[in-house]
Amino acid sequence: MTAANLSSMYPDGRVALREVGLRDGLQLTASFPSTEGKTRWIEAEYAAGVRYFDAGSFLPPARHPQFADVRDIVGFIDGLPGAVATVLTLNAHAAADALETPAPQLDCVVSATESHSLRNVRRTREEALGVVAEICRLREGSAHRPVIALGISTALGCTIEGQVDPADVYRLVGLGLDAGADIVSIADTVGYAGPLQVADMVRTVRTMADGRPVGVHLHDTRGLGLANASAALDEGATLIDGSLGGLGGCPAAPMATGNIVFEDLAFLCRTKGIDTGVDVRKLIALRKVQAEEMPGETFHGALEKAGLPLGLESSPAAQPV
Amino acid sequence: MTAANLSSMYPDGRVALREVGLRDGLQLTASFPSTEGKTRWIEAEYAAGVRYFDAGSFLPPARHPQFADVRDIVGFIDGLPGAVATVLTLNAHAAADALETPAPQLDCVVSATESHSLRNVRRTREEALGVVAEICRLREGSAHRPVIALGISTALGCTIEGQVDPADVYRLVGLGLDAGADIVSIADTVGYAGPLQVADMVRTVRTMADGRPVGVHLHDTRGLGLANASAALDEGATLIDGSLGGLGGCPAAPMATGNIVFEDLAFLCRTKGIDTGVDVRKLIALRKVQAEEMPGETFHGALEKAGLPLGLESSPAAQPV
Repeated sequence: MTAANLSSMYPDGRVALREVGLRDGLQLTASFPSTEGKTRWIEAEYAAGVRYFDAGSFLPPARHPQFADVRDIVGFIDGLPGAVATVLTLNAHAAADALETPAPQLDCVVSATESHSLRNVRRTREEALGVVAEICRLREGSAHRPVIALGISTALGCTIEGQVDPADVYRLVGLGLDAGADIVSIADTVGYAGPLQVADMVRTVRTMADGRPVGVHLHDTRGLGLANASAALDEGATLIDGSLGGLGGCPAAPMATGNIVFEDLAFLCRTKGIDTGVDVRKLIALRKVQAEEMPGETFHGALEKAGLPLGLESSPAAQPV
Repeated sequence: MTAANLSSMYPDGRVALREVGLRDGLQLTASFPSTEGKTRWIEAEYAAGVRYFDAGSFLPPARHPQFADVRDIVGFIDGLPGAVATVLTLNAHAAADALETPAPQLDCVVSATESHSLRNVRRTREEALGVVAEICRLREGSAHRPVIALGISTALGCTIEGQVDPADVYRLVGLGLDAGADIVSIADTVGYAGPLQVADMVRTVRTMADGRPVGVHLHDTRGLGLANASAALDEGATLIDGSLGGLGGCPAAPMATGNIVFEDLAFLCRTKGIDTGVDVRKLIALRKVQAEEMPGETFHGALEKAGLPLGLESSPAAQPV
């Protein structure tokens, strides 16, 4: 990657809210939108000021039909000025495919616990780190040299092993940065964390990342998603994931919520005086479109029911990045 | 009041979680539990380690039948060793009635905005402060001299006036403390606040309160209830309200959630290493009883669906205060 790439995608001090509904959000849903439905969704969120989109995963389309159109989605996002498409690449083959698209960011994942790593990607953590290193090498040989983001899943708790020793996370982060990752994201994959744990981990990882952006991928499974996001923002995390209506559940708790509700997250940022360029009012209006597009899904979120506070209804116009 | 009273009810540095479901929670519900149902609820929460209960409001029983048994409820709580019953007294007449019960705490309320004060209690803010002063005088002449708590409602936003100037809140807090209030509680009555606003206000009010306990009454109307509670705890608020299953809505937003979910709040405290004496696991189990008791109500909360994290299922035994 080039540092110029990274700093134009993630300008210093700016908080980037990423819509992950079209990737993480579709991993567990019974139905999924058509390619046209996805592009309508992206276009409408783009008009509301959203600039970061998790576009999909490079996986065999026969087993993962919801991501069969990932190339089209990346292409569509690439056509929107200032928009950033990120894609999940779980192995070198996926990365090689992704490198043939204009996607400016490839996401790699390493689990914090050995058990989760084996169950999730059938690799040990060391093997998963080897994949990250291999993807970084592939990137060096590519034409557009995309950014490589390393996500540490189950970093704040694991449904198989329980509590996770932060030292394990820091070891993996260090090895991932050495391998060439440009961004580190801490994932509370199963929603175990509290704000104190999140704050401590973001603080340490930011020191390790030495100026590279640090993000969080938080789940709201136990109701603390936004409290954790607030703590992460206070500690300087600048990439925060969420999904409109909280699309996407938790594999370990079928009844529970999953991703942080994107529009509520945008509201949180607004109450903190953080300008994300996202128009919360327009996002709330999109909830109706989303529900029509995916009639079988359960959506979550408070703002959609309560509306914006009096005096805040007219959000500032979305500011293009 | 006697300082001894206050410090035995609220030991220094200890965080008190108050169940407000039987008062605030019953203001808007279609149905309400029988006296026996209420005492079963209190007994079960007491067994789970809860020690602070909002017992009801002294209001004309003809118009407020849900609180007609407030004396019985206070008496029941008074019989539980270490349990604290608080009651809402909106005028001097109510306070005089309350002073004939063993309730160790009377709650008074002043709205931060003039419009809300006029609509809520048909008094100006100055008149409402006059009532607080009168209740403090009545208390001085009473046998057991209960604690007087001053709640500032709409302190963080108002559905009639919109944003609230914190200076208005601080002025009212100062006058209320001068009048004799022993405790100040900041209420985000309509769920407008974000964690930054809550933190700033708790910090300032704590300075003003000069060692007297400071609490928060937060609503989860816009999804930030627990993020706000976390911020309040970080700034040293030691009295936090919530209701099991989030019982009680928001008068200004009929579809929305109201009170913070008590069991999720207790979990938040646990993730922060704050020992509240409350057994989260037992609270979750109570949700079933509550739903049977009030079949027509909608309940909220994440933990009831997701369960406690692996390794935290066995909460420490409740510790009597």
